[in-house]
Amino acid sequence: MRIVELIRRKRDSGELTSEEIDQFITAYTAGEIPDYQMSAWLMAVFLRGMTRREIAALTEAMLHSGQVLDFSDLAGRKVDKHSTGGVGDKTSLVIAPIVAAGGLKVPMISGRGLGHSGGTLDKLESIPGFNVNLSLVDFRRVLETSGCALIGQTAEIAPADKKIYALRDVTGTVESPALISASIMSKKLAEGIDALVLDVKTGSGAFMKNIEDAANLAELLVETGKRMGKNVVALITDMSQPLGRKAGNAMEVVESIDVLSGGGPADLRELCLELAAWMFLLGERVKTLDEGRKLSTDLIASGQAREKFREIVGLQGGDEGVVDDPHRLAHARHTLDVTSPARGYISSTQCEQLGVACVVLGGGREKKDDTIDPAVGLEFHKRIGDAVECGEPLCTLHYNSEARLSEARRLVETAYNIEPEKPKTVSPLIHRVIGA
Amino acid sequence: MRIVELIRRKRDSGELTSEEIDQFITAYTAGEIPDYQMSAWLMAVFLRGMTRREIAALTEAMLHSGQVLDFSDLAGRKVDKHSTGGVGDKTSLVIAPIVAAGGLKVPMISGRGLGHSGGTLDKLESIPGFNVNLSLVDFRRVLETSGCALIGQTAEIAPADKKIYALRDVTGTVESPALISASIMSKKLAEGIDALVLDVKTGSGAFMKNIEDAANLAELLVETGKRMGKNVVALITDMSQPLGRKAGNAMEVVESIDVLSGGGPADLRELCLELAAWMFLLGERVKTLDEGRKLSTDLIASGQAREKFREIVGLQGGDEGVVDDPHRLAHARHTLDVTSPARGYISSTQCEQLGVACVVLGGGREKKDDTIDPAVGLEFHKRIGDAVECGEPLCTLHYNSEARLSEARRLVETAYNIEPEKPKTVSPLIHRVIGA
Repeated sequence: MRIVELIRRKRDSGELTSEEIDQFITAYTAGEIPDYQMSAWLMAVFLRGMTRREIAALTEAMLHSGQVLDFSDLAGRKVDKHSTGGVGDKTSLVIAPIVAAGGLKVPMISGRGLGHSGGTLDKLESIPGFNVNLSLVDFRRVLETSGCALIGQTAEIAPADKKIYALRDVTGTVESPALISASIMSKKLAEGIDALVLDVKTGSGAFMKNIEDAANLAELLVETGKRMGKNVVALITDMSQPLGRKAGNAMEVVESIDVLSGGGPADLRELCLELAAWMFLLGERVKTLDEGRKLSTDLIASGQAREKFREIVGLQGGDEGVVDDPHRLAHARHTLDVTSPARGYISSTQCEQLGVACVVLGGGREKKDDTIDPAVGLEFHKRIGDAVECGEPLCTLHYNSEARLSEARRLVETAYNIEPEKPKTVSPLIHRVIGA
Repeated sequence: MRIVELIRRKRDSGELTSEEIDQFITAYTAGEIPDYQMSAWLMAVFLRGMTRREIAALTEAMLHSGQVLDFSDLAGRKVDKHSTGGVGDKTSLVIAPIVAAGGLKVPMISGRGLGHSGGTLDKLESIPGFNVNLSLVDFRRVLETSGCALIGQTAEIAPADKKIYALRDVTGTVESPALISASIMSKKLAEGIDALVLDVKTGSGAFMKNIEDAANLAELLVETGKRMGKNVVALITDMSQPLGRKAGNAMEVVESIDVLSGGGPADLRELCLELAAWMFLLGERVKTLDEGRKLSTDLIASGQAREKFREIVGLQGGDEGVVDDPHRLAHARHTLDVTSPARGYISSTQCEQLGVACVVLGGGREKKDDTIDPAVGLEFHKRIGDAVECGEPLCTLHYNSEARLSEARRLVETAYNIEPEKPKTVSPLIHRVIGA
């Protein structure tokens, strides 16, 4: 197999056979193909697309590049949720303990920040001691004990995806439906789950900027999952502005604990309850979505979800004390307010730019081996439709390095659109449900 | 500068500023940007193209990644010729001594074989002792003494191009007009020349298979050169079949000496005279192209061009004896004739395949660090339009290794199309002149 020929064929809009895709992925995973050839191919795939057959072959090749887990001997149905990523999306940290507290098993394998979007693992690691790198034996043990375990992709799980995901992040090849679909489903199908709820984001802070693209991706994902015999549904949800009030790793843990404690911002709370309700429904814990919503609400109100979070943090080596005292988490040395240059109403946000600003401050990675500063982030004071006075703070930057401040500030300053009139419509939190 | 943003912008058909391109190239040359990011960007450039302004910025950035030579203190105008590459194209070996014998200076920095096409450096190195790796000090000394010097790209000349060129070769990003243009012009503009004649090949043995692509590239090249204040013209010339009768490194040196001695095949001789005439015209040595043709013809007839070749070979450490006794060059131990399977006329050739056959015999590189066998090659007996009898030799393979013979033979056998009727039209040797 001449790799250059495969790159050239995709570049010229040709189709690769399933065998070629399998050999390509196998050889790359084994380190026999250099990153620079894979990244050229990924860009060609990004710009030329893949057929359904190619996507299925890529998903299978990535799934079988490692171990496929089997938890069928553990009691309770296994369900998971996956979000396509956005700014301030910390729902996994809230949902996983709710659903585990409700009696289902949540074997959650999450990712790191990708491009402008945050990653569950990076957030969890801002909890001192929290170990996302459990062995598969420990993963099973924590899952069995507490009903939930949150880990990163191990070397055994879809290693091809792990390697490709890291490369896509730094080569501008993230927002490809074909690549996103294969990446998500290869990982999720390896988890040994019965059901999966997908949160496909759309809007200026999502990888899929418009609803049609998001719906296409959602259909791809649902189709792939159902083909593999899983109970799958996808919610198209709004990412035209950050979710909740905080972005940045430790800051998002604080906000997640707020929601688990019965508080937190309304939009974040509502989406968490909705996603948890769907997980209960697909996991056959409840008969209707409304029952699922009620169960989720009750589990928060009773404190059981919060205690479950504490239990998981403890089992995974983290400092349980943060649940009661979030100040034990890292916090930035400096803050700076970005204020409104005019009086009026927030009409829209360049939400992706806000995510990039967070990365620039050190909250994400610009290169594969960058280290993350868990303390930095953004605090949002205004949402779309809110009235603002001239000079009123829109967003507070939490930062540690002056060197990174000016670029982040510029990004935030230009991320808010302010109009004299109140916008007539504001995007709903949930646009559509696919596969139900 | 966030590299991923630059990759994404190009991916989305956006334009990069000159400063961004300059910073990107500078950082890549310094090793601060990994190959995998450059290759993703190159693929995006390949598929999205570049504006004229971007190409100019890229050329400048690559040019200034290293040293720009200055020979303004040497008497006589400095001119060079560059060919986009093909099969059997040995014109540099003939033209450089003609033009130097005519009183101009030819500071020629050449390349090695790329893909199916041969390289001037590989041909020169088939002359025992010939050193193409002169220091810049020695380059100047030979140029001053003889009026011509022929070397490879040193570490000082356009190092960005050297690095990017190697990466393009293995990532399917070679045939991009923008990248080809920047690569050629950054190297050539670093030579300290006043004028440049471009030989842009078109046809089945060229990188640009059709005339429109070749003309587009030629216009890009001419425009870039003129913007930098150089006197530039481009000839679109035919590569629908090999140039001359021989391909292979030592065999091409023999044929070059034939032309310099007043013989050689008509097509090769004609193209050399034409290119040399343009160099004399652009170098202001003559007033008209006809004068240039006459001067070139005279310099061959008088033996001055041949003596100049001998002088250059000697100054660069080569065995001058090869000029009178070409048998001192390496020659292959075995030959095999590929014969015509039918009676009729040669209607066309898969010229690139003939070039690949030469590489397969050992005359070129399949991997970057392959060593070349200078002795092997092909000898062509028939040209397009020629009548052939069934069983008459079309091409003789000169080879040393049986192991490589069968693949090369198969390539040659399938490279000739024979039809019962004589083709009505045969491509002219020179299709078009651009920039005159």
